[in-house]
Amino acid sequence: MNPVDIITKKRDGGELTRQELDFFIHGVTSGAIPDYQAAAWLMAVYFRGMTDQETTDLTLAMAASGDQLDLHDVLPGAIIVDKHSSGGVGDKTTLAVAPIAAACGLPVGKMSGRGLSFSGGTIDKLESIAGWKGEISEAHFRRQLQEVGLVIAAQTANLAPADKLLYALRDVTGTVPSLPLIAASIMSKKLAAGADAIVLDVKCGRGAFMETLPEAQALARQMVAIGRLAGRKVTALITQMAQPLGLAVGNALEVQEAIATLRGQGPADFQELVEVVASEMLLIAGAANDRARARTHVSQVIADGRALAKFRAFVAAQGGDVHLVDHPERLPSAPVQVAVPAPASGYVHAIDAREVGLVTVDLGGGRLKKGDPIDPAVGVLLRAKVGAQVTVGQPLCTVHAANAGTAAAAITRLQAAYTIKDDPTPDLAIVLDRIGGD
Amino acid sequence: MNPVDIITKKRDGGELTRQELDFFIHGVTSGAIPDYQAAAWLMAVYFRGMTDQETTDLTLAMAASGDQLDLHDVLPGAIIVDKHSSGGVGDKTTLAVAPIAAACGLPVGKMSGRGLSFSGGTIDKLESIAGWKGEISEAHFRRQLQEVGLVIAAQTANLAPADKLLYALRDVTGTVPSLPLIAASIMSKKLAAGADAIVLDVKCGRGAFMETLPEAQALARQMVAIGRLAGRKVTALITQMAQPLGLAVGNALEVQEAIATLRGQGPADFQELVEVVASEMLLIAGAANDRARARTHVSQVIADGRALAKFRAFVAAQGGDVHLVDHPERLPSAPVQVAVPAPASGYVHAIDAREVGLVTVDLGGGRLKKGDPIDPAVGVLLRAKVGAQVTVGQPLCTVHAANAGTAAAAITRLQAAYTIKDDPTPDLAIVLDRIGGD
Repeated sequence: MNPVDIITKKRDGGELTRQELDFFIHGVTSGAIPDYQAAAWLMAVYFRGMTDQETTDLTLAMAASGDQLDLHDVLPGAIIVDKHSSGGVGDKTTLAVAPIAAACGLPVGKMSGRGLSFSGGTIDKLESIAGWKGEISEAHFRRQLQEVGLVIAAQTANLAPADKLLYALRDVTGTVPSLPLIAASIMSKKLAAGADAIVLDVKCGRGAFMETLPEAQALARQMVAIGRLAGRKVTALITQMAQPLGLAVGNALEVQEAIATLRGQGPADFQELVEVVASEMLLIAGAANDRARARTHVSQVIADGRALAKFRAFVAAQGGDVHLVDHPERLPSAPVQVAVPAPASGYVHAIDAREVGLVTVDLGGGRLKKGDPIDPAVGVLLRAKVGAQVTVGQPLCTVHAANAGTAAAAITRLQAAYTIKDDPTPDLAIVLDRIGGD
Repeated sequence: MNPVDIITKKRDGGELTRQELDFFIHGVTSGAIPDYQAAAWLMAVYFRGMTDQETTDLTLAMAASGDQLDLHDVLPGAIIVDKHSSGGVGDKTTLAVAPIAAACGLPVGKMSGRGLSFSGGTIDKLESIAGWKGEISEAHFRRQLQEVGLVIAAQTANLAPADKLLYALRDVTGTVPSLPLIAASIMSKKLAAGADAIVLDVKCGRGAFMETLPEAQALARQMVAIGRLAGRKVTALITQMAQPLGLAVGNALEVQEAIATLRGQGPADFQELVEVVASEMLLIAGAANDRARARTHVSQVIADGRALAKFRAFVAAQGGDVHLVDHPERLPSAPVQVAVPAPASGYVHAIDAREVGLVTVDLGGGRLKKGDPIDPAVGVLLRAKVGAQVTVGQPLCTVHAANAGTAAAAITRLQAAYTIKDDPTPDLAIVLDRIGGD
């Protein structure tokens, strides 16, 4: 086999075999296949697409390019369930869903990422809790999973290294928006992390990578197909990201909101999403016979405090200060907190989620490039969401800033991010579609 | 401007501007744009194609990437005419056409290349003449053009360096067969070499890069369009390359045949091609009012010995031994010369030109990769071409080899390269089409 033949075959619309994809991905990972051949191949894939079988073989080859976690020895007989969000603004779902699922008896051992651009990252959020560490050894991971039933670790450098190389290359060669490449990138990390069953939360709207429902549905279908061909159970939910999720955007603010949600006191859209995702995890793992019973179980562990207790145990096991879980008001808070007044009376028609995410980045709460430091205290707390009636001067949201200068810049942009109209607007549904899982 | 935007624009089917192409090609040449971005862009061009204006702008940017020859100071008021062949088997056309055109009063200052794979190169062929050198200084080039009216020099390293970089990249990224990229590659070198008018000899058939007439016509039209938009006169002839051109394939053998042709004693197809191409050069340069008068002038300089005298002066000016021009039988000759007998009686229906070229490479007369040494003496001399009647055992051709072993291997392959059928077959026309130039 040689790389030019594989590039040419894909260029001409051929279906690459498992052997060809293994050879190509192995070569990319080892460096035997140079960047320029990988780049030409990526562009050919962009134009020609891939069949479900090819996409699955690519995913498996990428998953096999580095360490592959097998948790079955730690949890004999268990179905290892993972959840994945395609990224959005205010998306602290994992922080609430994982403890709930674990409290329902489902072991959750998860790798998460950091934020980039408008989209936040679970590890950054958890680091708002003093002492908490995402970088833990594999031995620690296994022990904690067995003892606590819940681990959230930062992705190790050697998890699907082929994905890291290809993603970096796609970013600079105009080959990011390719459905099979996006799906293989996400799924390769989930498979390498050892999941038997996966609930995918595919975000849809201005604050997500997939802006329209058909795009999000296509990505969801592609990932469900990979799961099926790779012998994994996969359910995908398409969920609202036209406006920010919940009320809090910013790391410590989102941890506070997640803790409130674990107490059953989260904002309506976020509380609903968390309970739906957790229920799907129980269902897919076979821990509940139907969706209604799964939901009941989820409600119980929230109501009786087991979900919050699981979160506390998890924070402690990874070195975090548990007093902050009991007193979330003591989490880092910004010195400047300024209300953003509504410029007009009417109904909130839209909130540009991406712009709220970018404002948070500029406040210091996110990063434009890998490795940028993050201020956990800053962010935006929404006070009116889509559908709400507001009167001129009433606060739309509160800016949490490090100083008056960054706050002032944020206020103008946040006013512009809100669209206020005279006519009443309905609330936005949180779950838009579900694909697979039945 | 940034490279990703340019890649993305082409990926999405946009038309790149002159400024964008200048920026991209300048970046590729300087190394500011890495190979992997160039590779992704080449694949996007492969899929999306280019408009004639884009292809022309690309050609001009590539021509401007290195040295650009301007010969108008040496030849005030002259129209600088060049000819180019797209490469084939037995293609010694330049060796005869250039002296004829020069003998007709048309100054010819030409850059030529070396052979690769089945296709020979003019510089390799001329190097069969002891002492002759293609690597000459620009000062030498200019002086010889003025004094002799004929120069054929090896392409300098800094002639269209962007083309060299892109060609090397295309070769390893599956992006060779792209019409605008092929046309820009050829034309950029012609424009950088200072041509005002160009006669293109686009070869068509198994022994050429364009195997079918529609492919050859498309390439010819593309190059004529570039010429028009770049303000150059361009005529393209599509000529026969289903069988080898003339009878000789191999470096010294081809020089002998070119010298015979300069005396008017070349094989019918090659004599005709040479006279047609030379006539087109006179016509395009305005040195003849019509095709008939151009052809008469060409016949005259052959008949009265001026064409051969011009070749002799040219060889002398570049250090070659002129006695070899007068006594071509003293050119390097192979120690083993073996006839290839016809395996059956009948009519020659086809001769696989590519296979004859590859046999010559394996005899040592060509190269598989850049820099391989070449044996000038070896090759194949055809004795029967398409349309000829042969009887079993009669020689189809003669193998000129360095030893009996390589000769034996060649004989079997050459017998298989000939298709002999019972029914009479007509001769193949040499000129298949003409595009532009009227």
